[in-house]
Amino acid sequence: MLSNRHIIEMSDLTPDDIMLILDTAESFKEVNERRIKKLPTLRGRTVVNLFLEPSTRTRTSFELAAKRLSADGINFSASTSATVKGESLVDTAETLSAMACDLVIIRHKYAGAPRMLADHMDAHIINGGDGMHQHPTQALLDLFTMREKLGRLEGLTVGIVGDISHSRVAGSLIPALRMVGARPIVVAPPTLLPARPDVLGAEVATSLDDVLPELDVAYMLRIQMERAEGMPFPSVREYANLFGMNSARLAKMPPHAIVMHPGPMNRGVEISSHVADSPRSVVLDQVNAGVAVRMAAMYLLLGGDASGTAA
Amino acid sequence: MLSNRHIIEMSDLTPDDIMLILDTAESFKEVNERRIKKLPTLRGRTVVNLFLEPSTRTRTSFELAAKRLSADGINFSASTSATVKGESLVDTAETLSAMACDLVIIRHKYAGAPRMLADHMDAHIINGGDGMHQHPTQALLDLFTMREKLGRLEGLTVGIVGDISHSRVAGSLIPALRMVGARPIVVAPPTLLPARPDVLGAEVATSLDDVLPELDVAYMLRIQMERAEGMPFPSVREYANLFGMNSARLAKMPPHAIVMHPGPMNRGVEISSHVADSPRSVVLDQVNAGVAVRMAAMYLLLGGDASGTAA
Amino acid sequence: MLSNRHIIEMSDLTPDDIMLILDTAESFKEVNERRIKKLPTLRGRTVVNLFLEPSTRTRTSFELAAKRLSADGINFSASTSATVKGESLVDTAETLSAMACDLVIIRHKYAGAPRMLADHMDAHIINGGDGMHQHPTQALLDLFTMREKLGRLEGLTVGIVGDISHSRVAGSLIPALRMVGARPIVVAPPTLLPARPDVLGAEVATSLDDVLPELDVAYMLRIQMERAEGMPFPSVREYANLFGMNSARLAKMPPHAIVMHPGPMNRGVEISSHVADSPRSVVLDQVNAGVAVRMAAMYLLLGGDASGTAA
Repeated sequence: MLSNRHIIEMSDLTPDDIMLILDTAESFKEVNERRIKKLPTLRGRTVVNLFLEPSTRTRTSFELAAKRLSADGINFSASTSATVKGESLVDTAETLSAMACDLVIIRHKYAGAPRMLADHMDAHIINGGDGMHQHPTQALLDLFTMREKLGRLEGLTVGIVGDISHSRVAGSLIPALRMVGARPIVVAPPTLLPARPDVLGAEVATSLDDVLPELDVAYMLRIQMERAEGMPFPSVREYANLFGMNSARLAKMPPHAIVMHPGPMNRGVEISSHVADSPRSVVLDQVNAGVAVRMAAMYLLLGGDASGTAA
Repeated sequence: MLSNRHIIEMSDLTPDDIMLILDTAESFKEVNERRIKKLPTLRGRTVVNLFLEPSTRTRTSFELAAKRLSADGINFSASTSATVKGESLVDTAETLSAMACDLVIIRHKYAGAPRMLADHMDAHIINGGDGMHQHPTQALLDLFTMREKLGRLEGLTVGIVGDISHSRVAGSLIPALRMVGARPIVVAPPTLLPARPDVLGAEVATSLDDVLPELDVAYMLRIQMERAEGMPFPSVREYANLFGMNSARLAKMPPHAIVMHPGPMNRGVEISSHVADSPRSVVLDQVNAGVAVRMAAMYLLLGGDASGTAA
Repeated sequence: MLSNRHIIEMSDLTPDDIMLILDTAESFKEVNERRIKKLPTLRGRTVVNLFLEPSTRTRTSFELAAKRLSADGINFSASTSATVKGESLVDTAETLSAMACDLVIIRHKYAGAPRMLADHMDAHIINGGDGMHQHPTQALLDLFTMREKLGRLEGLTVGIVGDISHSRVAGSLIPALRMVGARPIVVAPPTLLPARPDVLGAEVATSLDDVLPELDVAYMLRIQMERAEGMPFPSVREYANLFGMNSARLAKMPPHAIVMHPGPMNRGVEISSHVADSPRSVVLDQVNAGVAVRMAAMYLLLGGDASGTAA
């Protein structure tokens, strides 16, 4: 059992909760490698994907996790949502609650929307990304992948590179790393850092090249190309030159160090194709871990115990 | 077994059919309160949600009902429908029939579309709302909720308040109430009544305040805000003042009387937030009843008998 | 077992493969006629519908096929796809592979997209229609229907009538017919034929009336009305007059001959309503065969043997 009913931000979890989720995810990862990727664990439980921002990877990952646990899943997407008719999020929450939904995965453009949902329904809530706030299951799958590839979490030095001030991925990963005893360093030009970087809880660097030799993990954030015109750096090429991961920079990292990315990648911007496709990149391991970690989160929130993780 | 193969308008049902559906829904409501909300009853049956108008609540309610009965469900939505390529509804019907679909839930902007579908396929049809005509499962869930909250249907006085002339909810609820021996009163300004209100089969009132003391149920219809500019009343505020349910009006109703709304609500228009969230409002009970009533309708249409309503 | 891991174009199959698929589909057709249309065969296998062009019939047919075999299905549609964020098809392929998807059905506007997918993932691929290239399961269901209605495939003379140069249906049907020993004749005005019709592998005729007496099957291709303004014939009426199937032309065919169409039909253009609804039209048999043939293709690709085709 987890300490809280919801996973909305990393502070809803204790370090023990994190380890329980990662250990449970290992069992589920093994299930996902079988020919028959299916457990009866959440049969008859209702899981709603309430994705009010477009998403494919995250929504699909949650959807697969629910199906492989035999839950009944319902998809809400932005275009079909009741919000078209102007219904408030609170009324949507109460409606889903009245339909006896057990778990809602919500992605929303406004930070705080998942908490509002939690306040108005009986279901468990998992935050699938809210505004520029948090995206906790991404951080959990990242921890899973680091532990799997590097054998430990405690003491790892992780450079988180890119648009720190707008990133919900960073918003969850920084506290997650601190909770497990790792050392996060955010790496960005000053214009992509928050006004007061000291409150981030991470060391701050403005030169990627300076920190590379120290890193166990280089975590490259996605640059939002869709708002590239308004980005606070001179050009995409300039950004790639100074903050992109490429073969030359990879060579400056310790030989065991790995490169991570939450996806989808802008190849040639924050990561070169050569690095993305190299054995040092664990991007696809992250995707793979995502399904298992989300199965674990769903399973533990809905009251599972150890007996449900085997076929 | 029901008297007819389809539920397209209330006249497809007899009073006995209505009672059978409500009684069956009580069993299913109990299933929806369990941890494992799932029965094998409709395993291997194919249910199509053919929603050619946007909808979230109703579609989700039917989708959950199908899943909890273990049916295989397929979603058609407006944007992905074959109608994009100009295929006629008749050809869509014949195509779904050739794919061996057992039950089609249709929502369509034109009155009569469900009947056309029924004429061209072997499947059972449930009308999920057609134009300004009928929405029979809404009326059934409303009856379920009235019976549950007030202990009876016969003799209840139900005020149906709002845009009577355009409402498919009223189109089904008025005959449904008459079939079970209740007394419907439609309450609206003359501009929201049909040209010949005498054919409605209901008493007609133009003042809400006048009828409040008589009502067991105040049923507030949704005002279609999206066409508010063209509405035949001076302003939304004017409408709310004269026909909205608020605390003062609630106080004029008998103490046992309840307030209903088909959702989604325009808070501050046809219903005040204070009333919507009060214990006298049964709006969420209606939502809850919706899943159970739709399970019952699907189950009975597809030939279920009493043995299938328990786990 | 089939000869190849994928069904992307007809040359991925041998004549023996084709017969194995058709024979297996007969078992599944019988399943689809049962009250309980469900086999546990692909339980725990993950099937992705990656439809990057709008489609209803084909997507629904595959979706039903997957559900009736108890597979876990995921729908990607164009609007929700990662391609919105600019992710390449290769990265989408690798992502789905990392999520342990077993089978991907892809529809894409570019010829060759399914092959690219196959090159970058472990999953089996079925081409659900790529550009103006191929649509092999359509050809397989057409063969199934011809064999069912006419008792044989070898030696059948099949007129394929319409826009040969842009049709992926023709692109698969012509080689399919040759592989089973049938005789395809393409029938079209010169402007709807490719520049070098001799490479089609079919006889070529420019008058429908001339070939009618020889045909066992008249296969009417859909005219893409959405680009009708730019079509290389004077008018839709002109096209219907010269190349549309109608009662007069039906009478010139041998009495046993049948009329086919891949759907959705433009009634009054390539086929008259009278013919479409006559007993000589097998259009709905094609739709019915489609689910069974796709069940067979999925089942055989995913390693099924004879034991899985019965309940």
